[in-house]
Amino acid sequence: DELLDAPQNAAHYWKSTLAKVWLKNVASCGLVIVFLLLAAVAAFVAYQSISDFQRQAKHPAMSVSFKEVKSFEAPGIVLFPERAELLSCKHFYGTLPPLDHPGEPGPLACVIQEVYSEANMHDNVPWKRALVIRGPEAVLQHELLFLHFRLNQSQQDFSGINYLLFSSFDDFTHSNNGSAYLEKLMTSRTLWSFSGGFCTWVKLSLIRTPADDSRLDEFHQETNQEKYNQRREADQLTELFFVVFEWKDPFIQEVHHVVTASPWNVAAVLCGVFLALFKRQMT
Amino acid sequence: DELLDAPQNAAHYWKSTLAKVWLKNVASCGLVIVFLLLAAVAAFVAYQSISDFQRQAKHPAMSVSFKEVKSFEAPGIVLFPERAELLSCKHFYGTLPPLDHPGEPGPLACVIQEVYSEANMHDNVPWKRALVIRGPEAVLQHELLFLHFRLNQSQQDFSGINYLLFSSFDDFTHSNNGSAYLEKLMTSRTLWSFSGGFCTWVKLSLIRTPADDSRLDEFHQETNQEKYNQRREADQLTELFFVVFEWKDPFIQEVHHVVTASPWNVAAVLCGVFLALFKRQMT
Amino acid sequence: DELLDAPQNAAHYWKSTLAKVWLKNVASCGLVIVFLLLAAVAAFVAYQSISDFQRQAKHPAMSVSFKEVKSFEAPGIVLFPERAELLSCKHFYGTLPPLDHPGEPGPLACVIQEVYSEANMHDNVPWKRALVIRGPEAVLQHELLFLHFRLNQSQQDFSGINYLLFSSFDDFTHSNNGSAYLEKLMTSRTLWSFSGGFCTWVKLSLIRTPADDSRLDEFHQETNQEKYNQRREADQLTELFFVVFEWKDPFIQEVHHVVTASPWNVAAVLCGVFLALFKRQMT
Repeated sequence: DELLDAPQNAAHYWKSTLAKVWLKNVASCGLVIVFLLLAAVAAFVAYQSISDFQRQAKHPAMSVSFKEVKSFEAPGIVLFPERAELLSCKHFYGTLPPLDHPGEPGPLACVIQEVYSEANMHDNVPWKRALVIRGPEAVLQHELLFLHFRLNQSQQDFSGINYLLFSSFDDFTHSNNGSAYLEKLMTSRTLWSFSGGFCTWVKLSLIRTPADDSRLDEFHQETNQEKYNQRREADQLTELFFVVFEWKDPFIQEVHHVVTASPWNVAAVLCGVFLALFKRQMT
Repeated sequence: DELLDAPQNAAHYWKSTLAKVWLKNVASCGLVIVFLLLAAVAAFVAYQSISDFQRQAKHPAMSVSFKEVKSFEAPGIVLFPERAELLSCKHFYGTLPPLDHPGEPGPLACVIQEVYSEANMHDNVPWKRALVIRGPEAVLQHELLFLHFRLNQSQQDFSGINYLLFSSFDDFTHSNNGSAYLEKLMTSRTLWSFSGGFCTWVKLSLIRTPADDSRLDEFHQETNQEKYNQRREADQLTELFFVVFEWKDPFIQEVHHVVTASPWNVAAVLCGVFLALFKRQMT
Repeated sequence: DELLDAPQNAAHYWKSTLAKVWLKNVASCGLVIVFLLLAAVAAFVAYQSISDFQRQAKHPAMSVSFKEVKSFEAPGIVLFPERAELLSCKHFYGTLPPLDHPGEPGPLACVIQEVYSEANMHDNVPWKRALVIRGPEAVLQHELLFLHFRLNQSQQDFSGINYLLFSSFDDFTHSNNGSAYLEKLMTSRTLWSFSGGFCTWVKLSLIRTPADDSRLDEFHQETNQEKYNQRREADQLTELFFVVFEWKDPFIQEVHHVVTASPWNVAAVLCGVFLALFKRQMT
């Protein structure tokens, strides 16, 4: 019986051995296929990560944060009054008191520099005389810079005084050539204006964009006009201008540009994939 | 011949064996070097990923989405009329009809609450009496809230009525102390004003920033002034004020701050690197 | 002596072998535990990466870039003058010259199309006649589009002329049905107005949001009013309107929405984790 069983046992042994070998081959073959699939997916994903990174690097996302300050650096206010005359100029805190003598010269209690355009022959410098005034600083004490102008309106169609703003009055006073400083400002800044017959409230906000070497300051303005009540029987030819400059709130808006895709993240992904693929060769 | 070849075969055998061993050593040595290089790169990249993450976490990017609404929650409009008198107040839909009796009292068809400042002695509460009015809701029906004031202008230099806005009128009515509610508002909000002799159109937009525990609502305003034509031979001492509040469009601007760097991405990168390095020790 | 030492050596041999086996088991056991821990961390991190990605995909970050242009595409300005009459219309470069004959008809030196509302019976089309004017293009030469209107004010309470802006005048002229084009614009745009008795300076900025199939153009406006000095003893019933349209600066603000989370980064992380775990099965 044993002898008869031997061939059967041998056949059985061979069968099971073959089955084992076959299974092992199939299994290892399957493992290799799965591994190759994963490696292909990894390569595809690595490619997509890189192209995604390139796309995101072109469009940095905006990041805006608000920085609270106790007082602002004094801004410079450049006024181009043309024929209008500056009657008075004063800093108030909190509220504006009633006017003392509207239309008559009063105290000039603020820091003013007069600048004359040197480039008279150029058409792109449309101003002759500019008044540069030191703006308000103390935002928490609600500092108001009040200016008062008078214009004999018989000469002009429209009663308006142009002005522009820059971020640092001290920067201007430390420059050697005030006229050149203003001409450079004029190329990049927009002119604003306020109307005669009104008190114009200009609320300033500062938007700062840190650039590579320096910083870029821009002003955002919100204005309110309040009509002036000419109570005295004044001659109709005289127009009065009132303007109040103040800070809107104690916040500087800081704009950063954030590249949302990190090159190191992409590098890490690639590194991980290579490490995994490479270790297969070693083991 | 065979005996003579034997030493040569042996020498050949040793040479090839030595060459194989040498090659194998060089290869494995090279593999180790490459592996160490990759590991060093991985460590460097992990370090950079972490510092990149720290930098991005400090500057969350701004994400703005526009949410369309069918109607807004009624905002509160706080007016500080001082000496001016509210003549009429009405909600219109679509367009403003011609005025019935400008300068004369009319219907007060809106929800008004009168609030008196309790803190008379404080200098930082410059108001005595405030009118809190329920603002427009139905943006799709183009709801307009029209207000009409009269001021005997002999007392003031400038004709202006101050106001401020807050996002929920119902929030105010449910508060127990209206005066305290307004005083708290005054500390954070900016005052706006509209001028006499004009119809001021105030178009409101709401900017909502979801904060941790609550939400932060801010108003953006766009104003237009239209001159009032005083057709009657009125006394020159009376100034009329007209103001229209409406929603600009049915969109709420929602501002989210997105931290662009995910800590889990960085963790995943580190985890992958450690897994790969660690498996080398095991095999 | 050697025979006596033999059992001691054997005991020593067994001890050291047992210690080695024990150490080896403990070490490999520890390795497995550490590996399982790392794998669990990897799975957790993969889960967090995916949920982080889902959260970020819902809130795309805003990316704003400024594109400098040499000249803008001519915008369209739609004016609804109602009873007011257009007296003159001219393009200037740089500055506005003094008025020739205010209140009297002058040259109409600009491209104007007159459009009449077809849908007279609909309430949601409140205009009968609209003037569509080709806006300024040459921002570097500081092009100004000056318009001058006259209104017999005896009919209206308030002196205001409504207008709206759209980004391409040529787009309008190439459309077959001007009236339908304007009615479609009215549904999405906000009406603006300028007041009589003033010169209104409208400084335009363009904000472009590239959408899927087309682009979305929006205008941002900054306005200044300057009072008109009526020098002639004109009849009090006539109101004059002056408006100047110009570009604020040669920059188009382009808004992109960047999904800060890259799906490929997340896929790469998952792929790396699976590669590492899978290789354990193979070795």
